[in-house]
Amino acid sequence: MEQKEQPFGVIGVVGLGLIGGSLGLDLQSLGFKVHGLTHRKETAERAIELELASKISTNPSILTDCSLIILALPIKELLDPTKELLNCLPQKAVITDVGSVKEPILKIWKKLHPRFVASHPMAGTNKSGVESGRRNLFQNRTWVCTPDENTNQNALKLVKLFAEKLGSRWIQADARAHDEAVALISHLPVLISAALLKTVEGNKDQDLFPLLKELASSGFADTTRVGGGNPTLGAAMASSNTNAILKGIKNYQSIINDFEKLIKEENWPDLKEQLNQTKILREEFFSS
Amino acid sequence: MEQKEQPFGVIGVVGLGLIGGSLGLDLQSLGFKVHGLTHRKETAERAIELELASKISTNPSILTDCSLIILALPIKELLDPTKELLNCLPQKAVITDVGSVKEPILKIWKKLHPRFVASHPMAGTNKSGVESGRRNLFQNRTWVCTPDENTNQNALKLVKLFAEKLGSRWIQADARAHDEAVALISHLPVLISAALLKTVEGNKDQDLFPLLKELASSGFADTTRVGGGNPTLGAAMASSNTNAILKGIKNYQSIINDFEKLIKEENWPDLKEQLNQTKILREEFFSS
Repeated sequence: MEQKEQPFGVIGVVGLGLIGGSLGLDLQSLGFKVHGLTHRKETAERAIELELASKISTNPSILTDCSLIILALPIKELLDPTKELLNCLPQKAVITDVGSVKEPILKIWKKLHPRFVASHPMAGTNKSGVESGRRNLFQNRTWVCTPDENTNQNALKLVKLFAEKLGSRWIQADARAHDEAVALISHLPVLISAALLKTVEGNKDQDLFPLLKELASSGFADTTRVGGGNPTLGAAMASSNTNAILKGIKNYQSIINDFEKLIKEENWPDLKEQLNQTKILREEFFSS
Repeated sequence: MEQKEQPFGVIGVVGLGLIGGSLGLDLQSLGFKVHGLTHRKETAERAIELELASKISTNPSILTDCSLIILALPIKELLDPTKELLNCLPQKAVITDVGSVKEPILKIWKKLHPRFVASHPMAGTNKSGVESGRRNLFQNRTWVCTPDENTNQNALKLVKLFAEKLGSRWIQADARAHDEAVALISHLPVLISAALLKTVEGNKDQDLFPLLKELASSGFADTTRVGGGNPTLGAAMASSNTNAILKGIKNYQSIINDFEKLIKEENWPDLKEQLNQTKILREEFFSS
């Protein structure tokens, strides 16, 4: 009955952290039946209290009935899925993930499941864990999928429909291009933002430190937000997207060196011109 | 009559950009009479339309009646004030500024006026110019002043009362310590954020660029906000706080190099530990 009315049938969500928990909340409020799988018993108990899914278990067999399964797992687990999980993924189900790198995940999963669709919702906060799920996380966010020539087209359509139900804007891209792009606009920002925090931390034992805390305002808060995010995710991004990130760091270092040179030379007109260009570029990215 | 009821009498605001215009709007709504001085005729006309002050002129003589005058001018003009302006500042008036560097401004102005109080409201947006004034900009922001042993204590008290009227939290600090602190939490962020934008701009003519724009989300928006700000202000910060900024850049470069090394060595546990430390530090800065 259910499957006739709803294209997705029972939806499985593997992992009930920020992404998985938020998916569970939204999907239930859209009227879908959600089966949540989580590793640890304590997490399952808390997820039940928080009503993150209609049914929650630590036993992968909970996925047997599902026709669409979202792997909301850390990158590390996506790259090295357990046998127990793999054995419980129905061959007929559509499987998608939410990992922030796509080429290595697609490479592994295309061999593991015939109806796997690699995808990445561009949604996040600096929260993680079972307490962090929240409604409307995906609303108006970009949901990018990275199919290749072997991706099942019906499976792809289903995942698109799913993302749009959650209010996301759907785009398709090549997996490698996706990874290069997120290296620059997502992974590199984490590192440069964290490096700013480390620079300030260098004054931790100095007289200046209380004043730094007093004076830090919205500019510092914004610039350091992603550098104060989930350390496991940050390290996983770096380990799974290493080459693109190293290329980004190299270009970034050279620009910081240019800025340093302009300041040492007291070349204020050229520094101002550089800052003028960055102002224009940012307006191009965020026109509103 | 007015001066008996209001400790400030007529308040002069010199410069009607983001800070000056916002001051004018708030002060008028608090019931104060505000005299606004601006350089250019076109700005004065627009400021009158926007009602940024009770009376607006391009003639410095408008300041003659004022008992408190806020110099809401760019750093460059604060460091090199015109004779016309100086001649119209009443000797009895209390004068304060809003410049984001304090040591060089205090050094100049302590010789120019007996009742000068160096101060810096930690409030800003990425807007500038006569159109950018807005209400409640100073609400719940820190307003730091940097008196020295010669600062007139009554003048200092008046500026404190003034900042608190606007809803700011008042703190006092040594001018040099202030400048070192803002180099780290305000000026360095502008440069590292701008460098991220320049890194992305390096792909402007590549196929990747449209995808970068598609995928850029809140993390990139936050990390690049201050790097897309006012170029004149950014260059002025660097030119007036050069040594502290260069010291910050040097430490920052060394941390970026450390991160690069960890990634090249694929030392994910240490990278994760570094990111864990920055997460803890950020929570210390922004606990709420």
